[in-house]
Amino acid sequence: MNYQRFFEEAVDQVQAEKRYRVFADLERIVGRFPRAIWRSSGEAREITVWCSNDYLGMGQHPDVITAMQQAAGNMGSGAGGTRNISGTNHPLVELEQELADLHGKEAALVFTSGFVSNEASISTIARLLPDCLILSDELNHASMIEGVRRSGADKKVFRHNDLQHLERLLAVAPRERAKLIVFESVYSMDGDVAPIAEIAELARRYNAMTYIDEVHAVGMYGARGGGITDREGLADEIDVIEGTLAKAFGTLGGYIAGPRSVIDAVRSYAPGFIFTTALPPAIAAAATASIRHLKASHTERDQHQRQAQHTKERLAAAGLPVMSSDTHIVPVLVGDPELCKRASDHLLEKHGLYIQPINYPTVPRGTERLRITPTPFHSDALIGELAAALRETWEALGIPFARDQRPAQQRTDRIIPLVVPAAGG
Amino acid sequence: MNYQRFFEEAVDQVQAEKRYRVFADLERIVGRFPRAIWRSSGEAREITVWCSNDYLGMGQHPDVITAMQQAAGNMGSGAGGTRNISGTNHPLVELEQELADLHGKEAALVFTSGFVSNEASISTIARLLPDCLILSDELNHASMIEGVRRSGADKKVFRHNDLQHLERLLAVAPRERAKLIVFESVYSMDGDVAPIAEIAELARRYNAMTYIDEVHAVGMYGARGGGITDREGLADEIDVIEGTLAKAFGTLGGYIAGPRSVIDAVRSYAPGFIFTTALPPAIAAAATASIRHLKASHTERDQHQRQAQHTKERLAAAGLPVMSSDTHIVPVLVGDPELCKRASDHLLEKHGLYIQPINYPTVPRGTERLRITPTPFHSDALIGELAAALRETWEALGIPFARDQRPAQQRTDRIIPLVVPAAGG
Ligand SMILES: Cc1ncc(COP(=O)(O)O)c(C=O)c1O
Ligand SMILES: Cc1ncc(COP(=O)(O)O)c(C=O)c1O
Repeated sequence: MNYQRFFEEAVDQVQAEKRYRVFADLERIVGRFPRAIWRSSGEAREITVWCSNDYLGMGQHPDVITAMQQAAGNMGSGAGGTRNISGTNHPLVELEQELADLHGKEAALVFTSGFVSNEASISTIARLLPDCLILSDELNHASMIEGVRRSGADKKVFRHNDLQHLERLLAVAPRERAKLIVFESVYSMDGDVAPIAEIAELARRYNAMTYIDEVHAVGMYGARGGGITDREGLADEIDVIEGTLAKAFGTLGGYIAGPRSVIDAVRSYAPGFIFTTALPPAIAAAATASIRHLKASHTERDQHQRQAQHTKERLAAAGLPVMSSDTHIVPVLVGDPELCKRASDHLLEKHGLYIQPINYPTVPRGTERLRITPTPFHSDALIGELAAALRETWEALGIPFARDQRPAQQRTDRIIPLVVPAAGG
Repeated sequence: MNYQRFFEEAVDQVQAEKRYRVFADLERIVGRFPRAIWRSSGEAREITVWCSNDYLGMGQHPDVITAMQQAAGNMGSGAGGTRNISGTNHPLVELEQELADLHGKEAALVFTSGFVSNEASISTIARLLPDCLILSDELNHASMIEGVRRSGADKKVFRHNDLQHLERLLAVAPRERAKLIVFESVYSMDGDVAPIAEIAELARRYNAMTYIDEVHAVGMYGARGGGITDREGLADEIDVIEGTLAKAFGTLGGYIAGPRSVIDAVRSYAPGFIFTTALPPAIAAAATASIRHLKASHTERDQHQRQAQHTKERLAAAGLPVMSSDTHIVPVLVGDPELCKRASDHLLEKHGLYIQPINYPTVPRGTERLRITPTPFHSDALIGELAAALRETWEALGIPFARDQRPAQQRTDRIIPLVVPAAGG
């Protein structure tokens, strides 16, 4: 075994499949979001970011930054321990109360990331339940898939948002068998929304537990920013709501909110929660400031929806193949991995616009896309600039415009992928 | 299936086993480390923390806090995306360079925690290598055990720090078979150190790869704080060095450092790295400031060793059953879970000293202990106060002093546990 050569070949393979990733080295500029400094081969240049998941620009909100700076100044830069061994800092206790309140749940538990919250919670819940059967949407995020795998439980994958399929799978399982339905509210690559009420209704009928990932919805939907379950008044119908503090809330960390017994069981049994240093007080304080702001303020949410809608319209009017999306996410179809990468490079080099290409395995092959995330800070002028730059890019590289798409490709968000994709990275 | 009742019973079981954890709600006080405000049933009280893993007090270092505050002020509170999708912030790029340099390795990769770095790296390396055999020290941390499990690879557990046993296991495996030895440098519950040179030598002889967890050593050992491998000039002999930014460096996050090919393979294949939001620039900048400071300054390390040594001596002189430890960790044996918890409560309530009880499964049954971590900021006066408070507690609760320990218990750090413990939480 030649280890060195082996790992070189593993990387070569990623290159050969055109999946090798070069990370853009960015420095965001507070007060001038979505502008950032991009460093590449020794040069630094100002660009506009069009693919951030800091969806509302809360990462530069003065209240949030001040909360972070003050907590760091008063309590230091780290937590200093695991939750159990001196790491439970007061801002973290407050954050968990804030999150339980946000979702109208008895309790909440914070993890170091949304990824860890999904992996640790799903695996622990399904491992504790005897002979649990997991029913998992086929487009679930990689972190949920890891949780399902790690649980060792039986799993059945249901077709994306397909209620009939889910019901068939529920109906054949014995009523007394423990069942856990895991799904997302907003699917981040297509921007479509799950039929939450109907899934909750099926869960009740077949006596299943429900676990929803609201990572791409918390802060952005509902009167208080509690996500799609908040907007539709469904938080009570779902057992466990999972979310992140790292997207619309602009900080870092993940969480679950739910019944006290479930939260306490995960708290007591999940290695991914127990055996790791707690989030720093400065991060917890910043997250709480962000959540509190968005509980009270609608401005960001309204402006966000407006600019997302406006972007869709402007791009469609420019003849670009905007994929249908029910939310703030604006995917534009390229349909080829190399072209997708070249379009992204061209936009960055020539126009100073940064949109990361999204290729397989993040999305199914043939549906490679640019995933655009307008924020309240992407002005109409910036949107106009984007539409023109995309048109130029589409023409320069010969990417099909909307009218030239083959019908199947026009609705790629409905194509059922044959592989289990792993969205979001 | 009554889900609610089921989870209540799962928690009841933890209670029945005396493993139910109540987290102390703490607010650390910058400038007055190791003092903190402890909140309990509506009251707030100042106490001294004796069990923090902010081993050098770097979490309150002015350079570190300033770096955090400035980065937050300039770049915001979060990264805004995964590493691939707009989240690679410039301070994170600098941090990875700093870490590669710290360990004299070609490259480094930062994760959201040390837990995730172990789980993601070990599982990815062992999954990529065809038919890999993992050789794992029986006292490895929970995060390493998760990585080993998640890899799906064959594993053999060798007795703690037992070279003969490790060699026997290596010798029976075919030479051409891929093998990965995973172990720690400093074991955090006993404070003992692995025979790194000898393990590296065995690895060479039997053509195995080596992966060391230096979580409880980085920042604290070696001329530049590169850990035990730095102190002993062995960094070149080990393939992958893993560490945390959340203990001696006082911030948050974890990392691996190693050959470019291995780092790039983990970067390209590990879901736990790919599909999660990157560390915020403020955390990365704080970590870099901390590492840079400790590369140049010996004061903290020297004072740390002095205060740890002094603590061991003072407690031993007071007749307390200090367990043998080669490092800065000072375990004091209680040997019973209930007594251990009561001793901790008594110390906090009566003396205002906080030392978390360490019970099964973190340590083997019968070796329950108070794990004391003196820092450079625990003055001789505080150490004197600790010795007196422990004596009083031992007397009040009737815990055996050193002279009353049965011989087997005196050397519990050598008792081989029958369960795989999961240290550190
Ligand atoms: C659906 C979904 N769940 C969970 C996560 C992970 O959240 P975090 O970035 O906080 O780890 C992501 C993406 O990052 C995601 O897209
Ligand atoms: C040996 C060891 N490795 C890894 C970890 C995890 O590091 P982190 O706290 O950064 O997740 C810990 C404890 O937390 C540990 O004790």
